[in-house]
Amino acid sequence: MNTNINIPDLHQPALAARLQHRLDNKTKPLGSLGRIEALALRIGLILGSDTPALRDPQMLVCAADHGLAARGVSAYPSDVTWQMVENFLAGGAAVSVLARQHGIALMVVDCGVAHDFAPRAGLLVHKIAPGTADALQGPAMSAEQCAQAIANGQQVVRELPGNALLLGEMGIGNTSAASMLLARLAGLDVADCTGAGTGLDADAVQRKIGVLRQVLARHATEAEPLDALAAFGGFEIATLVGAVLQAAVERRVIVVDGFIASAAVLVASALQPAVLQRCVFAHRSGERGHALMLAHLKAEPLLDLGLRLGEGSGAALAWPLLASACAVLREMASFEAAGVSRQDEISVSATP
Amino acid sequence: MNTNINIPDLHQPALAARLQHRLDNKTKPLGSLGRIEALALRIGLILGSDTPALRDPQMLVCAADHGLAARGVSAYPSDVTWQMVENFLAGGAAVSVLARQHGIALMVVDCGVAHDFAPRAGLLVHKIAPGTADALQGPAMSAEQCAQAIANGQQVVRELPGNALLLGEMGIGNTSAASMLLARLAGLDVADCTGAGTGLDADAVQRKIGVLRQVLARHATEAEPLDALAAFGGFEIATLVGAVLQAAVERRVIVVDGFIASAAVLVASALQPAVLQRCVFAHRSGERGHALMLAHLKAEPLLDLGLRLGEGSGAALAWPLLASACAVLREMASFEAAGVSRQDEISVSATP
Repeated sequence: MNTNINIPDLHQPALAARLQHRLDNKTKPLGSLGRIEALALRIGLILGSDTPALRDPQMLVCAADHGLAARGVSAYPSDVTWQMVENFLAGGAAVSVLARQHGIALMVVDCGVAHDFAPRAGLLVHKIAPGTADALQGPAMSAEQCAQAIANGQQVVRELPGNALLLGEMGIGNTSAASMLLARLAGLDVADCTGAGTGLDADAVQRKIGVLRQVLARHATEAEPLDALAAFGGFEIATLVGAVLQAAVERRVIVVDGFIASAAVLVASALQPAVLQRCVFAHRSGERGHALMLAHLKAEPLLDLGLRLGEGSGAALAWPLLASACAVLREMASFEAAGVSRQDEISVSATP
Repeated sequence: MNTNINIPDLHQPALAARLQHRLDNKTKPLGSLGRIEALALRIGLILGSDTPALRDPQMLVCAADHGLAARGVSAYPSDVTWQMVENFLAGGAAVSVLARQHGIALMVVDCGVAHDFAPRAGLLVHKIAPGTADALQGPAMSAEQCAQAIANGQQVVRELPGNALLLGEMGIGNTSAASMLLARLAGLDVADCTGAGTGLDADAVQRKIGVLRQVLARHATEAEPLDALAAFGGFEIATLVGAVLQAAVERRVIVVDGFIASAAVLVASALQPAVLQRCVFAHRSGERGHALMLAHLKAEPLLDLGLRLGEGSGAALAWPLLASACAVLREMASFEAAGVSRQDEISVSATP
């Protein structure tokens, strides 16, 4: 599958040189806007523009349930998945509030929630099944379900406006899937990849690690990205993988939230490494495992605020920094235009 | 001086408990918004509200020249101070662009620039003198000038609308003043407090440290905050000290930018420690010395992006996070209101 997708390297040395020259000629000491300058360069390269402008940002919140949740790997019951979807749509969740603050359109996708939602604006139903199967008994999903979820994600993004995609998710049990994907695809001990999720205490985290070790052993031979994804789940992560691939094809700026969204990027970039050139990592999560995942992806996130909520909340919090980076490129004056003296024009009196 | 100022402790245990309860009842795992929650609590306590709202944020950019600049302590000529003031007012500087992005009003104060500006909107002239004196020859300013600059800062803030003050500055040579204030008031070696400023190379930084050692030796007995401020300068830092004190009296949220703005807070908090309760530190600067200054002030900044531009640019970049913190408190649904199950409602099947 996905053999017809090829995400090319963003090799644009002339544009990169022009962007760097533009940044260096803004009225500020060289490099003094730090990582905002690197961010401006990246966005310029993704959008293929000397003066990039972000348009119609879309927050895509993919939601699904996990069969493994019944094994006690989460501090919250599975019902919270559909309840939070209702909360997203009603505007009361963190991601709803933050997306509204920044004018980011919010689209929720039911990728496989164990609940039937009444149709309404802002909700797309691409339900593969009412939750994945218990990964301890067999694969969380079949190869066909996995392929369908990825295709759904591609289709959803194809129909979204704008040139920036923010990744969000909801699914009780999905830190377990992300931990197992990280352990398997990065070759790490799952204990180092597993955290408290929504709020397990230390003993419960140890029990969670025990369950995940069993699941990993049950699927010991699934080492390829899509095999691992099908084995561990979930539908929301698979849908996000498709969304990431499609956004990369279209050269949208992909704003990656926390641990779960990064797991989708981990899978997508294992399939197509150049995906990472289109990504901006919003933050380093407080969830154990995320720092390791970012290191594996060689990603340097913008924020480090101990967030561990998911939903896309960290991506929304970081969004204004992307807008600032573009504003710097587009709106700041050059030394010449502003009539400001440069470093080499200094005349220094002799020190005593 | 300032004997009539008394900034009381913000001791509001009942409000703190209400704010914490409110945060804990929002539809998210406990504490999962990390430092955004601590920020919401702080803003609530400063503004004295369960549902704080930031109104009419004001970016105050205080500008002045430094006699010591003639000693080669900066990579840029002093003329850049007035040229950048023109750039601020014309809308082309980083702080102009970022303030505009976030709807922050920009007010530039000529506290002592060696240039006569044509009057215009957005510029206040409270010029003490056309630049400080050479601190190697004597104090940068007299005690009377220092008191006047502080009084000017108080008056400026008294006349500004809104309940949030963002601190910005411009002054070629002012990292030198900030480094000396840090070394003197925190009892540190000036070499640890001194960085590249606008872009000195390694040799030039060593020469800068040599000059600052001479200035510190010249004023070896000035250990009190205001004596040190008068000895080392500058007018923009002194004006910011007054602005910080007045904003603290009025319980405005004070958003501290980088190394220079923090130096003003260092002086103000040495006079009135409760000032710090009203401060939000926007970022950890790339300028050597700022990390030490933040540690001395026990401040944990929001961003760490290698910024070293000053002007208030880091404060403006961090501003949306403050707005987000308030939005979380004001707009997020509670578990009860959203009908979302809580952690203690989980029922777990037996693990196999």
